[in-house]
Amino acid sequence: MSETRSFPWPLLHEFCLRVFRHLGVPEDQARLSADVLSAADRRGIDSHGVARLRTYYDLLSAGRINARPRPRIVRETPSTATVDGDNGLGLVVGPWANDVAIAKSEGAGTGWVAVCNTNHYGIAGYYVIKAVERDMIGWAMTNSSKGVAPLWGGERMLGTNPIAIGFPAGEQPPIILDMATSAVAFGKVEIAVREGKPIPLGWALDREGYATTDPKAMIDGGALVSLGGDREHGGHKGYGLAVAVDVLCAVLSGANWGPFAPPFALRQALPERQVGKGIGHFFGAMRIDAFRDAEEFKAQIDELIRTLRTTRPAPGTSGPLLPGDPEREAQKERDVHGVPLVAAVLDDLRDIARQTGVPLD
Amino acid sequence: MSETRSFPWPLLHEFCLRVFRHLGVPEDQARLSADVLSAADRRGIDSHGVARLRTYYDLLSAGRINARPRPRIVRETPSTATVDGDNGLGLVVGPWANDVAIAKSEGAGTGWVAVCNTNHYGIAGYYVIKAVERDMIGWAMTNSSKGVAPLWGGERMLGTNPIAIGFPAGEQPPIILDMATSAVAFGKVEIAVREGKPIPLGWALDREGYATTDPKAMIDGGALVSLGGDREHGGHKGYGLAVAVDVLCAVLSGANWGPFAPPFALRQALPERQVGKGIGHFFGAMRIDAFRDAEEFKAQIDELIRTLRTTRPAPGTSGPLLPGDPEREAQKERDVHGVPLVAAVLDDLRDIARQTGVPLD
Repeated sequence: MSETRSFPWPLLHEFCLRVFRHLGVPEDQARLSADVLSAADRRGIDSHGVARLRTYYDLLSAGRINARPRPRIVRETPSTATVDGDNGLGLVVGPWANDVAIAKSEGAGTGWVAVCNTNHYGIAGYYVIKAVERDMIGWAMTNSSKGVAPLWGGERMLGTNPIAIGFPAGEQPPIILDMATSAVAFGKVEIAVREGKPIPLGWALDREGYATTDPKAMIDGGALVSLGGDREHGGHKGYGLAVAVDVLCAVLSGANWGPFAPPFALRQALPERQVGKGIGHFFGAMRIDAFRDAEEFKAQIDELIRTLRTTRPAPGTSGPLLPGDPEREAQKERDVHGVPLVAAVLDDLRDIARQTGVPLD
Repeated sequence: MSETRSFPWPLLHEFCLRVFRHLGVPEDQARLSADVLSAADRRGIDSHGVARLRTYYDLLSAGRINARPRPRIVRETPSTATVDGDNGLGLVVGPWANDVAIAKSEGAGTGWVAVCNTNHYGIAGYYVIKAVERDMIGWAMTNSSKGVAPLWGGERMLGTNPIAIGFPAGEQPPIILDMATSAVAFGKVEIAVREGKPIPLGWALDREGYATTDPKAMIDGGALVSLGGDREHGGHKGYGLAVAVDVLCAVLSGANWGPFAPPFALRQALPERQVGKGIGHFFGAMRIDAFRDAEEFKAQIDELIRTLRTTRPAPGTSGPLLPGDPEREAQKERDVHGVPLVAAVLDDLRDIARQTGVPLD
C-alpha cells in the first residue's frame, strides 16, 4: 500500500521523454517537456513533476492537448508580446514564450509576454531560473483551474495562481521565490488525505464555506483559502494577488480566467462557459544592466543574503532561510539519492509503461 | 483625550500645500505633495495622509530631506530607467519617476523605473491609479525602514514593503490592489496601543522573538510578522514577497535595503551602515493595447468583477469584495463627511500651524 521507491532523475527524465515522443510530441519538444518535469522532481516539488505525467498522457491521448503546436506572437511592441500557444503542452509553450520575453529584454531592457491557449506549464521556478542564468530578473505566473475561495467567498472561484520571481546573485546561490497565492498548495491537502491526518485550521473550507480541518471536506467540493487566511490576518491580500495573477495571465492574453479556467484532468468536467482560450501564463525578463551594473547588483545581493542569514533566530528555530533554499536542499539530496515516488504515482507510471511499451526500469 | 474632528479634505490639502510652500518646496511640487497626502486621507489610509505631515515637516526643517530636488535619470533603455531622487520628498520624486514609467510605456509598450535616493512616497495606490487612468496596468512598490521579521527571524530586518497593482475596467471601477507584505500595517498596532486593546496572535513578535498579543511589546523592540504568519500558513511567502520588493526598489536602484533603510522619523537613529542612497521605489506601467485591444480587455475585467461579486458568500459574510472597494467606500463617505483626525494628529497640525503661521482653520 505505502510502497515508495526512489529513481535517479535521469531515468525518470528518459521515461518522460520517450512517453512524450510516443504520443507524437516532436523530439526537441519532448526533451524540453521532460526537462521541465525533471526540474520539479529534482527541486522537491513532487506535485509538478513526473507525478503529473499521467494527466499529460491522458490529455494528449484524448486529443485535448495539441501534440504539435505552433505557438505564435499575435501582437507585440518592443518590450511585449502576446502569444497564442495553439493549445500545446504548457511544458512546450511556456519555455517558448519565456524565450520571447528574454529576447525582448535584450533589445528593450525588459520583456513581458502574456500567453493564451496553453496548458499546465510545470513549476513556475523553472522559467525564472532561465532568466537568472542570463543576469536577468525573471518573472513567471500562471493561472489554473478553480480551487481557491476569495476572502468571504464560500466556493472555489480562482486557481492557486502562483508567482515566481528570481534574482541573480554573485557568489551566493540566486534568490528564487516560487509560491502559490493560496495559503498552501492543493498537494498538501492530498497528502493529508493519503496519510489520514487532519489539516491545520486556515488551509481550507468545506463545501458550505465553513473552515475545516478535514482534508476530504476540502477535496469534496470545498475550497482552499487565500494566503493570509481570514481578514484579520490579511486574507484579502492573498486573494488580491490571485486576482492580479489571473488578470496578467488570462485577461491580458485572452485566456479563460477565474472559474472558467479549464481543469488539468481528463475526468473533471469542463466549465460551462468559455471566456477565452485555454489557460494563461505571464512571463517577464528584466536585464539587470538596464538598471545598474550587473556585478554591482550581484555583489549587493550577496550582501543582502549574508545579512538576512545573520538575523537573530526566532526562539526554537535556526533562523530564516532565503527563498529557494528548500528547493536547493532537495535537489542536492535527490541528485544523490534519487526521486522518491509514492505508490499511486508508481502505479500510474507502470500503467503508462504497459500502454506505451516504454520500459520504466 | 479622545477628541476627534473631521475636516473637509480640500481644507487639509490647502494646509499641506501652504506648509510645504513655507518649507521652501516649489509651488508645483508643494501642490503635488499635498495631492498625494490627500489621496491617502480620502481613501481612508489614515497612516499615510496628513498624519504624516509632522514627519515631513521635521525632516524638511532639519534639512534631512532636500526641499528643491532635481531628480534625474542615471541609466536608461527603451523600457527602463534608473532615477536618482536627489534626496527629495518621495511625494515629489515618486510622481516624477512614475511619469517616466508611463512615458516609457508609450514608446516601448511597458516602462519600469527603479528609484534611489528618495524618501517616503505616501500611498502606493496613488501611483497605480495614474497609470490606470491612461489605460495602463500600474505597478508601485517601495521599501521602508525595518519593522518586519523574516519567517524564523526574531528581529526586524525588512520594511512593510508594499505592493500596489492597478487594472483599468470599463463600466466597473478599476481593480486597485494596495497591500503591505506584512500581515498588518504598523498603524494597526499603534491604534491598538491607543485604544488599550490586545492585538490578535499572528500580527507581531516581542523583542525576544516570541509571538505576542501585546501591541506595546511589538513597538518596544519587537517586530511585525510577514503575511501568512507561521510556516504552516505560508509566512515564507509574505517574507519572500518583502525580499522581492526590497530588491526591486533598493538593490536594483542603488538605495539602502533591508535593515539599512533609513527611518522616516527625525527621532529614530540612522542605521549604523549605509549600503546605498536613501530608500528606493519601483514603478511600472504596461499599456493594455500592447497586449490586447483595450476595450476588449476592459469588458473582460468588468465581467471578471461581476463574476467575483456573484461568489456564494461564506457563512456570516456578505460575500467577497474586490481590491479597491474599501478605499472607494471610504472616499465616498469622506468626500461628504470629511476626514476624521484623532487628537494626536490634531495636536501635531496645530503645532505646525503655530510654528509656520499657516492657519489650520
